[in-house]
Amino acid sequence: MQHFTSLSDVANPSALLAEAALFVQHPHQKSHLGKGKSLGLIFFNASLRTRMSTQRAGQLLGMDVTILNVSQDSWQLEFEDGTVMDGAKAEHIKEAAAVMGSYCDILGIRTFAGLKNRIADYAEHVMTAFQQYAGVPIVSLESATRHPLQSLTDWLTIHQQGFTHRPKVVLTWAPHPKALPQAVGNSFVEWMQAAEVDLTIAHPYGMDLSPDFVKNTPVMYNQDIAFEGADVIYAKNWSSFKDYGHVNDKERDWQITAEKMAHTNNAKFMHCLPVRRNMVVADQVLDSPQSLVISQAANRIPTAQAVLATILETL
Amino acid sequence: MQHFTSLSDVANPSALLAEAALFVQHPHQKSHLGKGKSLGLIFFNASLRTRMSTQRAGQLLGMDVTILNVSQDSWQLEFEDGTVMDGAKAEHIKEAAAVMGSYCDILGIRTFAGLKNRIADYAEHVMTAFQQYAGVPIVSLESATRHPLQSLTDWLTIHQQGFTHRPKVVLTWAPHPKALPQAVGNSFVEWMQAAEVDLTIAHPYGMDLSPDFVKNTPVMYNQDIAFEGADVIYAKNWSSFKDYGHVNDKERDWQITAEKMAHTNNAKFMHCLPVRRNMVVADQVLDSPQSLVISQAANRIPTAQAVLATILETL
Amino acid sequence: MQHFTSLSDVANPSALLAEAALFVQHPHQKSHLGKGKSLGLIFFNASLRTRMSTQRAGQLLGMDVTILNVSQDSWQLEFEDGTVMDGAKAEHIKEAAAVMGSYCDILGIRTFAGLKNRIADYAEHVMTAFQQYAGVPIVSLESATRHPLQSLTDWLTIHQQGFTHRPKVVLTWAPHPKALPQAVGNSFVEWMQAAEVDLTIAHPYGMDLSPDFVKNTPVMYNQDIAFEGADVIYAKNWSSFKDYGHVNDKERDWQITAEKMAHTNNAKFMHCLPVRRNMVVADQVLDSPQSLVISQAANRIPTAQAVLATILETL
Repeated sequence: MQHFTSLSDVANPSALLAEAALFVQHPHQKSHLGKGKSLGLIFFNASLRTRMSTQRAGQLLGMDVTILNVSQDSWQLEFEDGTVMDGAKAEHIKEAAAVMGSYCDILGIRTFAGLKNRIADYAEHVMTAFQQYAGVPIVSLESATRHPLQSLTDWLTIHQQGFTHRPKVVLTWAPHPKALPQAVGNSFVEWMQAAEVDLTIAHPYGMDLSPDFVKNTPVMYNQDIAFEGADVIYAKNWSSFKDYGHVNDKERDWQITAEKMAHTNNAKFMHCLPVRRNMVVADQVLDSPQSLVISQAANRIPTAQAVLATILETL
Repeated sequence: MQHFTSLSDVANPSALLAEAALFVQHPHQKSHLGKGKSLGLIFFNASLRTRMSTQRAGQLLGMDVTILNVSQDSWQLEFEDGTVMDGAKAEHIKEAAAVMGSYCDILGIRTFAGLKNRIADYAEHVMTAFQQYAGVPIVSLESATRHPLQSLTDWLTIHQQGFTHRPKVVLTWAPHPKALPQAVGNSFVEWMQAAEVDLTIAHPYGMDLSPDFVKNTPVMYNQDIAFEGADVIYAKNWSSFKDYGHVNDKERDWQITAEKMAHTNNAKFMHCLPVRRNMVVADQVLDSPQSLVISQAANRIPTAQAVLATILETL
Repeated sequence: MQHFTSLSDVANPSALLAEAALFVQHPHQKSHLGKGKSLGLIFFNASLRTRMSTQRAGQLLGMDVTILNVSQDSWQLEFEDGTVMDGAKAEHIKEAAAVMGSYCDILGIRTFAGLKNRIADYAEHVMTAFQQYAGVPIVSLESATRHPLQSLTDWLTIHQQGFTHRPKVVLTWAPHPKALPQAVGNSFVEWMQAAEVDLTIAHPYGMDLSPDFVKNTPVMYNQDIAFEGADVIYAKNWSSFKDYGHVNDKERDWQITAEKMAHTNNAKFMHCLPVRRNMVVADQVLDSPQSLVISQAANRIPTAQAVLATILETL
């Protein structure tokens, strides 16, 4: 595995899932694999789980971890080619990425969608620039359009439930007061399409994800009907793809409540966190035994270990 | 020891003091005790000594240390139950604490009093939420009402003076331009009441600490008289407990000067730092051989080692 | 070597250069030299290369590294003696430096010139205060007037070109929209005067560096003539020393372009980074095979290893 920025970077997703499951059982296996190697975690945006879990995953593999908050610790970077840099941006990504790559054996990059310019966001300028200029493997810690470490974690969490049948998994939009990227939704769809699950997407009219991600996955506009027979409810807000970045704040009744969960096949509840209580999901659901959100978050460490170990083994 | 948030968490304070004294002599003892274990240091507020010394203590015990500045690195957390999270706060402490606890073997938490609402501050919502939801041992790196790592350090520093009699220790209020919490004062009183010292508290009228902390400790309103015969002067500002958070900026003559120190029994001068020179204490006192402030600060490492080692030995 | 803040701290610069060259070949040599030792990196100003490379250098030598962003993680420090600290600054450098020194075996300090008061900047209050009060070796991570880790790196990079003759090295001023310190320029001159090179300084009229640094080094005000026969072009902006801190934004034609490079002896292009493209230097130069900027930045790790190892060997 050269990079880990989307499903298509992974030659054998099932083997990666199995590796992650092995790290759940044996967190200290391969603790010398990364010895003497450096993991750089570069944050253009805020993070809690990704920062802590990926740092921990690197440490557990014996790596030295270096964290850089780009705008707090250093300065703004320029991503445009050919520009005259006489403004606020002090360094071009060409130099910054190449230098970071010369200091680290693997780089993890977090960058969010700006949600102003869909073409720019979906071109993934930041992630592709690092892949182009850094000269070392790049691990996405969430990019403008995808969050593959989260999706592999989600897959692992569903896998751990031990469903004896092909489970019905519903990705449902839920209300949120602020404009959020489509990255988690896109990426979940991408990975679930490759998994042994029946995936349904549910959201209000007009809140469709990109057709490049949805493909043939069934989409429903009635949440109650979508929930019928579901084994897993995966809730997530995203802002509009069509009216790019627009916040839909009218559909408050898309909140995941106990009443809605009652339509399901005693489904598990999943969310990538952070989650806004009583906005995205009711306390009653989140605090119920059906909620997997904490073990889902805990799975971020073995997942990151599997990804880092797979890359380390090729260095 | 399950947690370390106040004196009452410590079954045997004298044994903990002895352990700290041992780490002064042998900083590299037990350097494998924390191997493979993770220490998370979570800062809701600024820190210099606590951050650097606790990180170093963890490293010396072989732990992997992860630091999170909550508001800079991640986002604001919600602490209220049952609220509809449609405002600025992106995550509830219930999830945040549980997730951090799933990533770390021990969590250190720093949070200051808001000094607006006495009942809320003294309820210690942040520290108790972490104890309730994190599922791992919690070490206070200073909470709204206590700073036990500092107090254990202070005790160790007094212990190191080798007084052959029961020393007279005076905790004296000193002037400061800004509203400071009562945490260091409260906590010093709590620990000194358990130590083999004669403790006196001195402060201007109206600047009393909480009676729940003061208990039967003598209080004097005349600094000169309080200083008579003192072996240790421990200076610290706090804002009003009664008129909660109010700054008393009239009592500038409570500054610790050489003239005032002359009333003592050639007393040692202590302060937890940071200290404002010529406001809290005169240069002449701070730069005198009587001042213990630097060795007091240096003692933060062995103290934190003792606390972490005691917890690690129970994991 | 007690400290590393300027060339004059180094007893044998050639031996230090040789040590750095050895770390280029063997990055993992002496990986146990710093075991159990703590490196504190204290940032008063932003950093990317220096932060990442010095942290990595410490890790490669087996040190535990602690990073503090002074104003973000802690609070503002006071540097004036005798002042009444009733303002914004919460702690005096006397205490802060002594405490940091008690927590770390070596301290690296980054502080920029304020560019308001030349006498204050050139007195190097911050760096000298740490040397005076910390009680441990101080490594400059760039101070108000010098950047010796960069200069040693620059020397190493020139050395690696294997010139068979005494190379002509031109330090040329280049345009920049903001007020930058003279530190990199000063320091480069200081170190090149001790190296086996012919150094020329080129800049517009009025942009002279301090005569205390320039000494007998030839200065030219015509960039084209200065470039003739050059083997190395080292570009760097600085604000005015004479009209202290003033930005010269009229001399845009001092930008390093391919046309200008054509005057040289097929010279290598160097810059310490970050560099503003098409302001300081044209894309065409920076993206050409003549540009050494990335390997120059990569050399920051072995250079920092050489400095830290030399200090560690004396502890």
